[in-house]
Amino acid sequence: QRYRIAALPGDGIGKEVVPEGLRCLRAAADAYGFVLDVEEFGFASAEYWLRHGEMMPKDWREVLGGFDAIFFGAVGWPEAVPDHVSLWGSLLQLRRGFDQYVNLRPVRLLRGVRGPLRDHGPGDIDFYVVRENTEGEYSSIGGRIFEGTERETVLQETVMTRTGVDRVLRYAFELAGSRPERHLTWATKSNGISISMPYWDERAAEMALRYPHVTADKDHIDILAAKFVLQPERYDVVVASNLFGDILSDLGPACTGTIGVAPSANINPERVHPSLFEPVHGSAPDIAGRGIANPVGQIWSGAMMLEHLGETAAAAGVLAAVESVLERRPDVLTPDLGGTATTTALGAAIAGHITSG
Amino acid sequence: QRYRIAALPGDGIGKEVVPEGLRCLRAAADAYGFVLDVEEFGFASAEYWLRHGEMMPKDWREVLGGFDAIFFGAVGWPEAVPDHVSLWGSLLQLRRGFDQYVNLRPVRLLRGVRGPLRDHGPGDIDFYVVRENTEGEYSSIGGRIFEGTERETVLQETVMTRTGVDRVLRYAFELAGSRPERHLTWATKSNGISISMPYWDERAAEMALRYPHVTADKDHIDILAAKFVLQPERYDVVVASNLFGDILSDLGPACTGTIGVAPSANINPERVHPSLFEPVHGSAPDIAGRGIANPVGQIWSGAMMLEHLGETAAAAGVLAAVESVLERRPDVLTPDLGGTATTTALGAAIAGHITSG
Ligand SMILES: CC(C)[C@H](C(=O)O)[C@@H](O)C(=O)O
Ligand SMILES: CC(C)[C@H](C(=O)O)[C@@H](O)C(=O)O
Repeated sequence: QRYRIAALPGDGIGKEVVPEGLRCLRAAADAYGFVLDVEEFGFASAEYWLRHGEMMPKDWREVLGGFDAIFFGAVGWPEAVPDHVSLWGSLLQLRRGFDQYVNLRPVRLLRGVRGPLRDHGPGDIDFYVVRENTEGEYSSIGGRIFEGTERETVLQETVMTRTGVDRVLRYAFELAGSRPERHLTWATKSNGISISMPYWDERAAEMALRYPHVTADKDHIDILAAKFVLQPERYDVVVASNLFGDILSDLGPACTGTIGVAPSANINPERVHPSLFEPVHGSAPDIAGRGIANPVGQIWSGAMMLEHLGETAAAAGVLAAVESVLERRPDVLTPDLGGTATTTALGAAIAGHITSG
Repeated sequence: QRYRIAALPGDGIGKEVVPEGLRCLRAAADAYGFVLDVEEFGFASAEYWLRHGEMMPKDWREVLGGFDAIFFGAVGWPEAVPDHVSLWGSLLQLRRGFDQYVNLRPVRLLRGVRGPLRDHGPGDIDFYVVRENTEGEYSSIGGRIFEGTERETVLQETVMTRTGVDRVLRYAFELAGSRPERHLTWATKSNGISISMPYWDERAAEMALRYPHVTADKDHIDILAAKFVLQPERYDVVVASNLFGDILSDLGPACTGTIGVAPSANINPERVHPSLFEPVHGSAPDIAGRGIANPVGQIWSGAMMLEHLGETAAAAGVLAAVESVLERRPDVLTPDLGGTATTTALGAAIAGHITSG
């Protein structure tokens, strides 16, 4: 088998962790007998923006559309480009343009990682956040009136469509139905956000009727965030709007020790367009250039990409290598994991483990 | 001194914790030499709604407007009234109608409470969430089109005004300037929510220029939520929009062990209208009627009310009694604190401690 992969390292630590991700993917290709044709692109970065005045080439759909998957680092360099410009011009445009309407984010306390929660160890935290990834609170509709005066007023629209809501709910219910616990929680805030969120509740309640074998309940986002800290063992599949999914999928990984290990898959389930795999963390300007970023989020995202491509054994092999190295090699842990090693040292150790089986 | 207090217990555990709050307030009045005239009202409850078809009487402004403060329990009983109906018909209307534009929520790990975070003890977590309380994401503007069809589309507007944003920022900067650390963090999501949040950032950055003695920075809500778990000691004053403040002020208290202890003050700083004091927790239908709700959030809200009324010594006395009882009386702790005692036992112990000094 042969797969065409587009690699977009982006900004900051994206440029440090993508090479380690690729190193592990290549090791997996060799070990499991398939071929990866990787092409690297410099766009979706502040550097590209400074040179071209845009974040991506105009023909990005054609450039990227033929790949089997996109392996993405991180984008954002606020000193050079305001975040909303860089993100809407790249990552958010890719998610929407390639209709990657599911953002799948596993939250798992890995063996070898010391979590911050006193009463929870590996095995206690193991769930998925399924985030709506194309609409909702992330809209660019709205504007200002009476600009620059005391009466200045700003409007920003949240947009939910039946198509958009139902398809991500369906994906989440299917996922929940395939897991042993068969439990789904939908995040809401229908007590305060009184139009869009009651609609979200309605659609979720209706979808639940079609999945009688899945136990479904809802939590308001405020109490849900609190319960991630106090009772993370309650959760199995959590489905959320774009914004709530964003918050929960940083908070969940924090409860497992570090967001440096958390992966994500931006999936177009119909496979009409390529899906995009990236760590949950951002470009982290504060630690960029020091070679100490944790590459595990990127590597685990690579494992999710292999899974998506159908290389299930290789995906499992990569994740097993990650867990094994985290557990047995304190000498190669990065600072966020309590160690003193570099990005490269940790990446190389995991790649080595993939190769040696 | 004599103060007129309106007590609105509301629904569920509100009806169980308000009496304990009042018991402690009365003990404080006796001990510190002032008089509380408390009038209790049954509206702002599902029971009232079932009887009258509305959550509050039409003349609620006149009924409540003359009081010095409102002592509120919790509202919400989804079996009888949908949450968005009960909340928009009571609490949210009071906040907006009485222009209580600051929602002040202390997050503090109290002595005697075992927090969920392995590496953080009392003293490590001590900050304020200042939440915008009248506009932002909590709007009732929007609606549906193509209802009931596959094209169904729902819009919900977020509204930010210069007046609304600036006044809550000013309050937060003043508060930060009065604290030893003089540090303010504003919550944002300007990388994803591309119109309202960049505006919030602009106003915050401009306000920061007027408070050069306060060090101000911003965090995106996703990473901010993660840092509440990983590095809560970083925070001093966190100012946030209505929705983000809602989330952070449940998450913060969860990091201090239980949201059962967390208080809040809905403040009209100009004192044109009465301010409203209520615990952060809701009506908790799941444990209502069992007499096991934690009354500390309600009692601490009472201390914030006394502070607001100018009874500073009494406020400090109530909070000291809370801390002392939590630390020294494991026999009266409620289940959420790891004990087996009742709401009444814990309330009575705290009141007793206030009386005996
Ligand atoms: C009940 C709900 C509408 C309310 C809010 O979101 O403001 C509550 O969660 C709070 O924090 O006071
Ligand atoms: C960078 C930002 C726009 C992005 C998002 O909010 O979606 C990120 O936080 C993420 O979670 O992928």
